[in-house]
Amino acid sequence: MGDPIPAVWAIDIGGTRTKYGLVDRGGSVLTADTLETRPRDPADVLFSRLFERFDAYLAGRSESIDIQGIGIGAPNANFYTGFIENPPNLRWGTVNIAELVKPYRDVPMAITNDANATALGEMRFGAAGNLRHFIEVTLGTGVGSGFVVNGDILYGHDGFAGELGHVTVVRGGRRCGCGKRGCLETYASATGLTRTVFELMAEKRADSPLRAVPPQDLTSETVFRAAEEGDAIAAAAFERTGRILGETLADAAALFSPEAIILFGGLTAAGDRIFAPVQTHMEANLFPAFKGKVKLLKTGLTQGRAAILGSAALIWIELEKQTK
Amino acid sequence: MGDPIPAVWAIDIGGTRTKYGLVDRGGSVLTADTLETRPRDPADVLFSRLFERFDAYLAGRSESIDIQGIGIGAPNANFYTGFIENPPNLRWGTVNIAELVKPYRDVPMAITNDANATALGEMRFGAAGNLRHFIEVTLGTGVGSGFVVNGDILYGHDGFAGELGHVTVVRGGRRCGCGKRGCLETYASATGLTRTVFELMAEKRADSPLRAVPPQDLTSETVFRAAEEGDAIAAAAFERTGRILGETLADAAALFSPEAIILFGGLTAAGDRIFAPVQTHMEANLFPAFKGKVKLLKTGLTQGRAAILGSAALIWIELEKQTK
Repeated sequence: MGDPIPAVWAIDIGGTRTKYGLVDRGGSVLTADTLETRPRDPADVLFSRLFERFDAYLAGRSESIDIQGIGIGAPNANFYTGFIENPPNLRWGTVNIAELVKPYRDVPMAITNDANATALGEMRFGAAGNLRHFIEVTLGTGVGSGFVVNGDILYGHDGFAGELGHVTVVRGGRRCGCGKRGCLETYASATGLTRTVFELMAEKRADSPLRAVPPQDLTSETVFRAAEEGDAIAAAAFERTGRILGETLADAAALFSPEAIILFGGLTAAGDRIFAPVQTHMEANLFPAFKGKVKLLKTGLTQGRAAILGSAALIWIELEKQTK
Repeated sequence: MGDPIPAVWAIDIGGTRTKYGLVDRGGSVLTADTLETRPRDPADVLFSRLFERFDAYLAGRSESIDIQGIGIGAPNANFYTGFIENPPNLRWGTVNIAELVKPYRDVPMAITNDANATALGEMRFGAAGNLRHFIEVTLGTGVGSGFVVNGDILYGHDGFAGELGHVTVVRGGRRCGCGKRGCLETYASATGLTRTVFELMAEKRADSPLRAVPPQDLTSETVFRAAEEGDAIAAAAFERTGRILGETLADAAALFSPEAIILFGGLTAAGDRIFAPVQTHMEANLFPAFKGKVKLLKTGLTQGRAAILGSAALIWIELEKQTK
């Protein structure tokens, strides 16, 4: 038996599923799996179930593993405090995660929200290898974002900076889950894309196969397939979504002067359908001094592994800060 | 004769006038004066004239001064490189200021743009004493801004981050000097206020003493006086200006999670006329998690001294970093 392999437990807590994995310093995933979050259970039940699995895995391995730390991505996770504060899809209230984890394994741990974890994963294991200033935008059911300034996540005064998804892009526009109106998230997410399809169906008279789909069943994948098959309404929905996102990214660039903006998440599967209008409208709206200088990149993280790699990057980066 | 007094030369280069002063660590201004910039002269002529004055002043003093450094605020000044890059109101092209200054006095020096210098002045000598995360917004002829993150100015990848004045607030809106349309600066500056008066004169039929003023002669002070004397158009111009600024600050807060936003510059002389609508519309548009948590403050810097104190703060802060 050789030296123990240094690795970290990486956890990504979602409203329905929690992913976890054991990740070494170079981003190799030694094991990874998923369990149901059971959002009605208290938080400690989830951690008890997680550590049961961790212990079982480690007991069954032949090589010994040296667990160096634990990184956790979760909704409303506060990096500063170690608390998760009223997560929207979990009935936890506000929980001190650092305290919850300690009895199971007393190693360094860090938590942050999923969008920030993705940005760190991108920096450590993805497309942002050498970048010190970039913006990672997650286009999923909602719009998440992580702003990297001088190689560190921008947390702001209270730990919750970086809410690009809740910048107002249309005054008095669409209702958002956050209570505001016209947030970027209501236009530039997978859900926003389908809302734009409804808007276009109201505006235009053109036939479209999407008119045959019950609105509650319409997904961004359906819209993408329709666009690829030549449907004008589907194509226009991507164009409008990309325009709004591109305009908003141009404004964010005026504030942050990033070297790159990296897009991640389900909607990026549409490729040029979304990247082309984002690029065009970002460039057209950039502050002149920045024109031609802000790269628009696609994530370098594998879709299924991104959450685990993000949480792993979070704790590896913290561990390295401590040894400096 | 006692020990020499440690002080820095603080310089603020403007398109028409250059201010300078000798400032000690505590912000006391030992001397301050102004000279014409003569924007058609090359940059080295300005520095030759400045150092002639500096030497004359020091020669005439009885106590000895220990010049520790030089801080310079100037348009398009790049903190990273020490260059001023194509300043809009000076015929300098791109100049290496660090190299220009060295032959006169080889002490540590730092340059930054005026809006960032103001933010540093605010942190060191003004209203932002204990703040590590705040946004300083200068409402002058244009709109400048300095974003402070973890106690440092956000410079971004190329040194020119923080252009809040060029965030688009009205798509396809007013033409801006930068070449874009609808920039915040075209609405929320002193000039923007007068443009809003013209807009309101077009929209409304109400009488107003401002209708007797040739538009080219209209100043923000005239609009303020008219508002104080009960003119509805002048009052509405302040309300609209404050609304647009407040909405934009709410979006900036969603990205930065600042503890405070500090307003500085000519337009703040209007007091509650501008602060009240900014506060109302910022609060109404804040991301729910930030509501009630972002302070709106008035500058703590004396208007006439702010430029000098900003440049002084810049170099004092750098000097202290070096000794750490």
